[in-house]
Amino acid sequence: MTETASRIPQGERSRAMRLRLLEATVDCLVELGWSGTTTTVVSQRAGVSRGAQLHHFPSKQALVVAAVEHLAERRRDELRRRAEGLPEQDRIRGVLELLAGQFVSPVFFAALELWVAARTDAELRELVGPLERRIGRETHAYAVELLGIDEARGDNRQLVQATLDLVRGLGLAASLTDDAKRREAVLDSWAEVLGRELVIS
Amino acid sequence: MTETASRIPQGERSRAMRLRLLEATVDCLVELGWSGTTTTVVSQRAGVSRGAQLHHFPSKQALVVAAVEHLAERRRDELRRRAEGLPEQDRIRGVLELLAGQFVSPVFFAALELWVAARTDAELRELVGPLERRIGRETHAYAVELLGIDEARGDNRQLVQATLDLVRGLGLAASLTDDAKRREAVLDSWAEVLGRELVIS
Repeated sequence: MTETASRIPQGERSRAMRLRLLEATVDCLVELGWSGTTTTVVSQRAGVSRGAQLHHFPSKQALVVAAVEHLAERRRDELRRRAEGLPEQDRIRGVLELLAGQFVSPVFFAALELWVAARTDAELRELVGPLERRIGRETHAYAVELLGIDEARGDNRQLVQATLDLVRGLGLAASLTDDAKRREAVLDSWAEVLGRELVIS
Repeated sequence: MTETASRIPQGERSRAMRLRLLEATVDCLVELGWSGTTTTVVSQRAGVSRGAQLHHFPSKQALVVAAVEHLAERRRDELRRRAEGLPEQDRIRGVLELLAGQFVSPVFFAALELWVAARTDAELRELVGPLERRIGRETHAYAVELLGIDEARGDNRQLVQATLDLVRGLGLAASLTDDAKRREAVLDSWAEVLGRELVIS
């Protein structure tokens, strides 16, 4: 143990190691996909011994689910920060840009790897299902808050759900082809639809 | 060679073998996912020798892309057949049901495996990209035809694109959780929006 390392408290070093493992897992998922993300590759990237890794996360499943959960938290913080800068003018279009940006990002691509793997892996699905539902609820509530609407009025609830399904669909399309121009046009038009259809409180 | 086999012409037997390989590949993708779909498993399921399989498809990539292409054709035929039974009343809702059904199906889940694998596999992406764009264009043209609209009028083109992105997003959500009830509600509401927003010729 080096002198520097010995000066950092054990708990703090352990947390830092955990964080390095989570970040390395996300990077691996984005770059190498689910099947390329092995615990060996992750521990090498994170510079963490296999033993220490197993101490934090006993399986690839546990590691990857924790990584996507970590990612969702980071994403939420980033969304809140960016939402503070939203102008009042063209607010709906601005909110759509924010939401769509969440689904056209490395974060979404990492989550996509996990979701698709979970479809054919019952054990993984047990872990991913509740996480995905929680993230879905949070994103929905946040979209409502950003739009400044009352969910109970008119078709507001369904329109927000449709919006989130739309940006999810756009994100999936973007994972294969960079269709930013098409996406912007769809969001422009969608913002106008929402402007007419939402009941604004 | 059995007597029965020898009575079937070579070309026909070869086509039948090819078809069995494609169907087995789709089944494997749906059940086992991309990483579980190996050429060995496919040839066993199809009851085709490894040599014959390699003759038809020299690599896993070639096999899987051909399988998804085959699937897209089968899906198109099925869609045309089901579209004939569409009632004139509530036509928009009926069209949405048809389109959404395409994305909540084993066919879509097999394609999803391929798309996600292609994101991190440059060679596969070269093959999948053009296929995906062609299927996208065809589905778009077909949606326009089913809705009986003129794409050039109003925001019709963007609304159809948004609709297809929406049902793609719904399909992705359905791959993990069976959320049929939520999906129906979103489609009900979206049909009403389209009824108001589309310029019907």
